Amino acid sequence: MELDPRSAGAEEGAPPVWRPSGLVTLTTDFGLQDPYVGIMKGVVHCACPGVTCIDLSHEIAPQDVATAGFFVAHSWNYFPVGTVHVAVVDPGVGSKRAILVAEEAGHAFLAPDNGLLDAVLGADAQVFTLDEDRFALPERSSTFHGRDVFAPAAGALAGGLAPAAAGEPRPGWLPSERDDPVRGVGTGGSIETEVVLVDRFGNLISGLDVGRLALDLGEWTVEAGGRLIPCAGTYTEVAPGEPLALVDSYGHLEVAVRDGDAARELNLGRGAVLTLRRRM
Amino acid sequence: MELDPRSAGAEEGAPPVWRPSGLVTLTTDFGLQDPYVGIMKGVVHCACPGVTCIDLSHEIAPQDVATAGFFVAHSWNYFPVGTVHVAVVDPGVGSKRAILVAEEAGHAFLAPDNGLLDAVLGADAQVFTLDEDRFALPERSSTFHGRDVFAPAAGALAGGLAPAAAGEPRPGWLPSERDDPVRGVGTGGSIETEVVLVDRFGNLISGLDVGRLALDLGEWTVEAGGRLIPCAGTYTEVAPGEPLALVDSYGHLEVAVRDGDAARELNLGRGAVLTLRRRM
Amino acid sequence: MELDPRSAGAEEGAPPVWRPSGLVTLTTDFGLQDPYVGIMKGVVHCACPGVTCIDLSHEIAPQDVATAGFFVAHSWNYFPVGTVHVAVVDPGVGSKRAILVAEEAGHAFLAPDNGLLDAVLGADAQVFTLDEDRFALPERSSTFHGRDVFAPAAGALAGGLAPAAAGEPRPGWLPSERDDPVRGVGTGGSIETEVVLVDRFGNLISGLDVGRLALDLGEWTVEAGGRLIPCAGTYTEVAPGEPLALVDSYGHLEVAVRDGDAARELNLGRGAVLTLRRRM
Repeated sequence: MELDPRSAGAEEGAPPVWRPSGLVTLTTDFGLQDPYVGIMKGVVHCACPGVTCIDLSHEIAPQDVATAGFFVAHSWNYFPVGTVHVAVVDPGVGSKRAILVAEEAGHAFLAPDNGLLDAVLGADAQVFTLDEDRFALPERSSTFHGRDVFAPAAGALAGGLAPAAAGEPRPGWLPSERDDPVRGVGTGGSIETEVVLVDRFGNLISGLDVGRLALDLGEWTVEAGGRLIPCAGTYTEVAPGEPLALVDSYGHLEVAVRDGDAARELNLGRGAVLTLRRRM
Repeated sequence: MELDPRSAGAEEGAPPVWRPSGLVTLTTDFGLQDPYVGIMKGVVHCACPGVTCIDLSHEIAPQDVATAGFFVAHSWNYFPVGTVHVAVVDPGVGSKRAILVAEEAGHAFLAPDNGLLDAVLGADAQVFTLDEDRFALPERSSTFHGRDVFAPAAGALAGGLAPAAAGEPRPGWLPSERDDPVRGVGTGGSIETEVVLVDRFGNLISGLDVGRLALDLGEWTVEAGGRLIPCAGTYTEVAPGEPLALVDSYGHLEVAVRDGDAARELNLGRGAVLTLRRRM
Repeated sequence: MELDPRSAGAEEGAPPVWRPSGLVTLTTDFGLQDPYVGIMKGVVHCACPGVTCIDLSHEIAPQDVATAGFFVAHSWNYFPVGTVHVAVVDPGVGSKRAILVAEEAGHAFLAPDNGLLDAVLGADAQVFTLDEDRFALPERSSTFHGRDVFAPAAGALAGGLAPAAAGEPRPGWLPSERDDPVRGVGTGGSIETEVVLVDRFGNLISGLDVGRLALDLGEWTVEAGGRLIPCAGTYTEVAPGEPLALVDSYGHLEVAVRDGDAARELNLGRGAVLTLRRRM
């Protein structure tokens, strides 16, 4: 029997509905040096005994809302239906910015209303403004709503509260256009995209979703930093130390160096332009 | 119904008593590069199947007992009553230093008897010297009591053992005076305090507990590194890139830079003096 | 009653057999900056609701298969019988390299067939080649088998599948000779070994398993970097700042500096030679 995370935890044959799995994922820019993440988990457990918290990343650069969105967008459907996904990258903490609570495909989402969820939610999402006062701890700080608002609300959702019952419909919510950050099609059928993320291995991950554009990489070569880089199916198709372009595990175009660090060896980083050129 | 972590897990209306929540928090200077923390969790699970371990921090600088105490002191009451809090920053491992096991407000604490718990426990704490031989693994190393003594003892507590039954009363235990590290009141009604912690965001966290001194920050300005810094309620009250002083999520006086890194931008760190001056 | 992790979770008096504990340990070179580890846990939970995942380390240097093996080898028997140990350091991902699934002493192991398990498994291990197609997610990437193959297989094992039922016997599996990396006995009864690991504290951990060679360190002195270093039982036997050699918590010969960082202060690292010389 094949495991498909997209339906794990759902009734067979039915569209997934909200029914808590007891899992909460956490994505923040809090780092792991301070106890901030642990404290959030403590509050989630106070609100929902028996819950399981799973870290997606806490090493997002401070205030990097876009990377938080990218991480949640590419992670959530590997979790069982009924999981609560909490993302706190919140430069506006303490101001009047709202918090969104959303439901899509039987998952719940909780994040500041600062664009973080734009790349995460699709056309079918139901999006609400969280009733913060209802969930906030008795003593709410002005700097750590992860602990004082997000965590108790996440615990309430993990305990069974439906996202729709946690706030009021968010006026004006529109699903994002989801433009792939492709910078336009140049002369000769070339396509430009940008590096949006450098991962732990130094892989240069672009914003170009290969599947969505229905590209066959076998027909293209990638130019990056003035160098022509062959497209391949796996790292092992090129010699160790050689660069290649491939579809990565996010489904995006990535430039890598086999057994090496492409960012360092090609001297490229976030924002670098990758140009796909049709092979002759 | 409001969530108050301070009574989560306790009988309603009664003072909290020790009844295990199944949670264990871990605070160490072991880092995350080595498997030391994972091994500790394995032993806790051997002693108490079904337990849940939550990391507070493992990135404490080696041997930095004071920061470990600060982290536990400001975290423990965001966990359900019945949680076991284990802190292992233990320069004296292998020597004759004792291990303390304590109970306060229905929580249990386990740490070396090296001052770590001074800032954590209050006047109502019951403090015992752990009977190490009773809990130690059969082959006890001289360098890793986190694994060989703390973890099996933590598992026993998480499984229901009362702290009072895990050792003998610690002779001479006195609750710490809890002097706020305020360096004295200078001329003209100024107050000096020190930076005790720089967090992931570069926020300069002082030892001054604003609530305990009943200060109204609106009446003060902070001088740090020769610069006058306005007090504010939230980050967003000043322009991006501007410094401010505020009450942080620990309840302490903090100097921050909005959307920036105060430690780097003001070139200040641990031990730096912050002087509060009464506004004219 | 003494806790012995080596039999925790097993029937009393019987040799340990495979019966899942509900625990999965994870060892990778994925780092914690990206959501790769969290995604793996999501898939494990899809395959086995209620499982508990415990991190051993994700900060292994990219492609450092030997350190991953060292970590698992020295960690697994501190977990309850019935734990699944997954290690993904996988330079050959996407190529035809096989994945091994093994059972030893009632624990299960899952790792690429690239030598990682050589130092982990003993003579009694049963070793199989995983039937990857049976466990792989519907859309299998060529770069992230941790998510697409290892995680669903780990979940199946944690849910009760026996390792023997997850693949076919691995032809030609031979238990490793487990040569200690002792570089030979020099003149005058000296023994040479190498630093195989520098831990978070800067301790220089050698490949020499002191117990296996039945050495009494009291009879030896260690030469490292041209300096003679005394052997001791614990850190506190030398003055702060002084170097010492001792049996560490892995059971290996280690050179440390009390309250200091031996790697930095002695300017030594991985690959450095330690020479034991018999004391006169």
